[in-house]
Amino acid sequence: MINTITRGFASDNNSGVHPDILDAISRANIGHTIAYGDDQYTQAAMEAFEATFGGNIEVFFVYNGTAANVLGLTSATRSFNSIICAETAHINVDECAAPEKFCGSKLLSIPTEDGKLRPPDIEKHLHGFGFEHHAQPKVISITQPTELGTLYTTAEIITIVDLARKYDLVVHMDGARIANATVALNTDLKTCTRDLGIDVLSFGGTKNGMMFGEAIVFFNRNLSSNFKYIRKQGMQLNSKMRYISAQFEAYLSNGLWRNNAQHANKMATLLKRGIDAIPAVQITQKVETNGIFAIIPGDCIQDLQNEFFFYVWNEAMSEVRWMTSFDTQAEDIEAFVQLLKDKIA
Amino acid sequence: MINTITRGFASDNNSGVHPDILDAISRANIGHTIAYGDDQYTQAAMEAFEATFGGNIEVFFVYNGTAANVLGLTSATRSFNSIICAETAHINVDECAAPEKFCGSKLLSIPTEDGKLRPPDIEKHLHGFGFEHHAQPKVISITQPTELGTLYTTAEIITIVDLARKYDLVVHMDGARIANATVALNTDLKTCTRDLGIDVLSFGGTKNGMMFGEAIVFFNRNLSSNFKYIRKQGMQLNSKMRYISAQFEAYLSNGLWRNNAQHANKMATLLKRGIDAIPAVQITQKVETNGIFAIIPGDCIQDLQNEFFFYVWNEAMSEVRWMTSFDTQAEDIEAFVQLLKDKIA
Amino acid sequence: MINTITRGFASDNNSGVHPDILDAISRANIGHTIAYGDDQYTQAAMEAFEATFGGNIEVFFVYNGTAANVLGLTSATRSFNSIICAETAHINVDECAAPEKFCGSKLLSIPTEDGKLRPPDIEKHLHGFGFEHHAQPKVISITQPTELGTLYTTAEIITIVDLARKYDLVVHMDGARIANATVALNTDLKTCTRDLGIDVLSFGGTKNGMMFGEAIVFFNRNLSSNFKYIRKQGMQLNSKMRYISAQFEAYLSNGLWRNNAQHANKMATLLKRGIDAIPAVQITQKVETNGIFAIIPGDCIQDLQNEFFFYVWNEAMSEVRWMTSFDTQAEDIEAFVQLLKDKIA
Amino acid sequence: MINTITRGFASDNNSGVHPDILDAISRANIGHTIAYGDDQYTQAAMEAFEATFGGNIEVFFVYNGTAANVLGLTSATRSFNSIICAETAHINVDECAAPEKFCGSKLLSIPTEDGKLRPPDIEKHLHGFGFEHHAQPKVISITQPTELGTLYTTAEIITIVDLARKYDLVVHMDGARIANATVALNTDLKTCTRDLGIDVLSFGGTKNGMMFGEAIVFFNRNLSSNFKYIRKQGMQLNSKMRYISAQFEAYLSNGLWRNNAQHANKMATLLKRGIDAIPAVQITQKVETNGIFAIIPGDCIQDLQNEFFFYVWNEAMSEVRWMTSFDTQAEDIEAFVQLLKDKIA
Repeated sequence: MINTITRGFASDNNSGVHPDILDAISRANIGHTIAYGDDQYTQAAMEAFEATFGGNIEVFFVYNGTAANVLGLTSATRSFNSIICAETAHINVDECAAPEKFCGSKLLSIPTEDGKLRPPDIEKHLHGFGFEHHAQPKVISITQPTELGTLYTTAEIITIVDLARKYDLVVHMDGARIANATVALNTDLKTCTRDLGIDVLSFGGTKNGMMFGEAIVFFNRNLSSNFKYIRKQGMQLNSKMRYISAQFEAYLSNGLWRNNAQHANKMATLLKRGIDAIPAVQITQKVETNGIFAIIPGDCIQDLQNEFFFYVWNEAMSEVRWMTSFDTQAEDIEAFVQLLKDKIA
Repeated sequence: MINTITRGFASDNNSGVHPDILDAISRANIGHTIAYGDDQYTQAAMEAFEATFGGNIEVFFVYNGTAANVLGLTSATRSFNSIICAETAHINVDECAAPEKFCGSKLLSIPTEDGKLRPPDIEKHLHGFGFEHHAQPKVISITQPTELGTLYTTAEIITIVDLARKYDLVVHMDGARIANATVALNTDLKTCTRDLGIDVLSFGGTKNGMMFGEAIVFFNRNLSSNFKYIRKQGMQLNSKMRYISAQFEAYLSNGLWRNNAQHANKMATLLKRGIDAIPAVQITQKVETNGIFAIIPGDCIQDLQNEFFFYVWNEAMSEVRWMTSFDTQAEDIEAFVQLLKDKIA
Repeated sequence: MINTITRGFASDNNSGVHPDILDAISRANIGHTIAYGDDQYTQAAMEAFEATFGGNIEVFFVYNGTAANVLGLTSATRSFNSIICAETAHINVDECAAPEKFCGSKLLSIPTEDGKLRPPDIEKHLHGFGFEHHAQPKVISITQPTELGTLYTTAEIITIVDLARKYDLVVHMDGARIANATVALNTDLKTCTRDLGIDVLSFGGTKNGMMFGEAIVFFNRNLSSNFKYIRKQGMQLNSKMRYISAQFEAYLSNGLWRNNAQHANKMATLLKRGIDAIPAVQITQKVETNGIFAIIPGDCIQDLQNEFFFYVWNEAMSEVRWMTSFDTQAEDIEAFVQLLKDKIA
Repeated sequence: MINTITRGFASDNNSGVHPDILDAISRANIGHTIAYGDDQYTQAAMEAFEATFGGNIEVFFVYNGTAANVLGLTSATRSFNSIICAETAHINVDECAAPEKFCGSKLLSIPTEDGKLRPPDIEKHLHGFGFEHHAQPKVISITQPTELGTLYTTAEIITIVDLARKYDLVVHMDGARIANATVALNTDLKTCTRDLGIDVLSFGGTKNGMMFGEAIVFFNRNLSSNFKYIRKQGMQLNSKMRYISAQFEAYLSNGLWRNNAQHANKMATLLKRGIDAIPAVQITQKVETNGIFAIIPGDCIQDLQNEFFFYVWNEAMSEVRWMTSFDTQAEDIEAFVQLLKDKIA
């Protein structure tokens, strides 16, 4: 166990909860409300979602991102379907085969350089339709931003959605950090999700200042008709729902999602600027959101981690990952850059 | 949606969060910690569990009670096993077949008058061992207190555990309200669980003043060796774990669990006393913890619900359920008894 | 291992294969055919099914009765559904929780005296629709004849189907011995299945002279659109399909199903007549098809089994089951009745 | 539907059943035997397996190869495990996600040139042990011969088994055509499976002259203790088991497996010899067993198929697959080679 208080660069889920979120939780802590979501806080949160994404949607809260992904995928599949994703996708490498276990479906994972799926790679898997020996492709799952911190452009997503439409596939977006993508694209949440044709979105907030809770946003309501049962059977129906709902209402209503994400991205830019002056650090992916991937001399990793914790991404390559967060401070960056200079130079 | 602020008698999960729990959450909200449980708050919570239940146990946190039950059962079974429970058990009627879906196992449910399993009823299912056509019995799951508010005596549990040992079965206890049972039995948490031979306990706090989070406590460590994978694949690994851990530490360490449960039970006793004076209300189950089941004139139910919300348990019989909670006030009881008198008399 | 050649009364699947079936298999053993069912034998079998049950149906072959039941139920359910059946149903007690594992659904089993479901008992489970905590009832599964050898009358099935229609439920019939029921009802296969409103039928032949293979017959084609994938993923797609198809074609086309079943039923009637003259043998269920359930003195069971093998059905009650088969001979019955008289009198 | 009688080159499961197998079935068709495998034919088959593979093994019969693979893998895994295989493996591309559905596990598929796994490729997946976010690697599944007709050498298998031992992994062999491999390696069945350290073998016969039925042979008995329940719950327990057992007894006892496989392989060699003289046909994989993969001019494919049916393997590359079988005749080869010359030249 690493006893930390110091803000490090390990992950945006190592950070705490934004004070506005805690306040919202406290404000909801009054009297009784009906359990399981039939309450005024949840109603208000739903209105905030409609204000954000437009009407005629269905939104369900679950506890975490893995559940949002897995249950969202369940809503779109039968067990004989397959799901296409990048090899680096969270659903493929960080969910301990939960999609396989719960959906019963096959994941078709595609190696990529930068975490982004591209139509020609997807198309290689688009065969065997109607052939019963072959799991039937049904979902393309993309992560925005990717697990490598990179961004799909709007045009890139459109080509994927077009491909999906051609083959009658559903497009799922893992948006665990969708706020960071949205501000990076200088747009709003609806424009970069629903308006591009995404069918179902895992909408995360925990990595951007919330305490717990994730939303599954159905833009395609054909997928959501049975979702309340899928959620309950998926062990993801929260009894005291108001404490998720109050968070989301605060997160969406006053620009908190945007402010937090902008700040985290800005801190990554600041860190990148500092690193650019250190020749021995080689950045390996475009810095487009709040993560930096870099190759550094292996012998200084332990020393660095002792002061600011972070993870090694690829041991063989001596590649590390540095994540900034809503609570990263400019002085954290300065101190870390100075440390890098001291230890690496 | 019923817009409530008024404290009602619908469920102990309609209540809010105890201030001490909120305080503990706020105090944990400082700096960074490693995600997923490798942090000092979780360490402290584990120590509180060991102080409560003794050493040589394994404790895992999940989000809610359904998950605690389902994943605890998964740890003890293979899909070809069966699980014996009361017909009224939460796992049988309130989890939308999550045990069947996730464990793949058969539930053998036993009709009871009072929610309590008894050895002769269990034994009817203890056959077909080694016979491959028959799902192999592996777990007896009991709920303490039961969904009907009744209590197993210590002696009753011991006879069930003895039966389990004879047939090499695991005993699971659904302790969503174990605090209420413990104070009703005038004992401590270890004495009425581990010391009776329970193998795995779903230890709840949400119905007794916590916000979210449930613990699976393995007294039998043979069952827990793979549990971390089962939890992750079960979509129940919390990233910002400290916010569950801090709650449990506060809940266990300063007698909060006991105070809250004692209060809730006392309020039920008070309510019972008031009801006893109303001949038209017929109590149907022993009032041993914090729930009261009663048959009342059907035509006054709606009127009553308009002022204090509660659920009808059995429509055909006009039987209702009234739950008290840690935050129920004596004046709530008085007002409700008065209302009952006004509406029913 | 009991080394038997002697025809006993253990089960109709202890019998061999009717010569006409073996002949049909041999006749199909010529040259090459496309695997997995795209062959002329399968085409001919499908035509035989249409001649039997009428057009506009879908028929799929699987290997055995458990698969026919489980996959048929899968076609009609999602994992959050429940399936209503008699406590004695094969799906409930003889399939090692395969329905739970494969469908992920809950079985709601109903105790009965005679293996037959009745609407009032079914209706007790028809609640909680739309309530997400509750597995959603979706299928009523009846067995015709029942595992206790009894028969639903046409009128009884119609009341069940009417109930199903009212609640938008699917009716599945486990017809492992449907031939025996059909001849007992003195009707034809279509009249006692499709014409009564059955949606999906497990159509068995193995217990009536076939070697292996069972058909799932969809009268309700809304259920069959994805079935080819369900079958393949269910590990039930036979490569050399012609050897199942040729059996079914022979079974259906020349009255073999009827002749075999009539004979088996007649042998049961003969056995019953013999037993009626032995006061110490007490028949416990109506003898309506090819099974007899009877209480006999426990101390003679072993002696009887040594000469004609059969199973004890209920050890506590000293109740045994005697099944006749297509190959049971009148002299088998005579010899067995004589033995009963010798050993019991 | 292609109406075939002509022996083609589509698949060895398009062929019929060897007369000796049919004879064995007929000979078993006498009197009654206990169902589900407790009979003398199954006993004899088990003895034949012990004579073939040595004692201290456990053998179970299932209906087909998909079931043998999926249930064999189930015996070695929990749902949080992963299974490593070639991208071309039957379990990966031809079982409609049955392994994912039934095991709940993740398949880690490795692209290969020739269908053969090699340790360095496997090792890339051997990380994350003990890390709960990551499905835990547990099985290496190899196919011998591969789906591309190629053979692992003994030395190659040993290096894979050594790797497996180092990481405490189980080695599963998909031996749907193991007879063809064994004769190609000029050895016996035990030497090229058990003696190399294989833990569990899917032992096929259907592609080599049997009618139906596949064996799961456990050399590692730690894996088989619960298998009878896995098989039953997997819908693969045959009631009239004798008709599988009699086939296997005949297949193993009189060299039939060897004779059939030798013949099929010899026919492939003959076909290769003929093709070698046709410059426009380019063989793409080593011809080591009974399959030939070749690139041919696309415009003649339809014409060829009209006379001798076969499958296109890779449409984009105009690559086709020709399989020979136990019943392929030398004149079939001659006629087909002549046809190739006529159509292609």
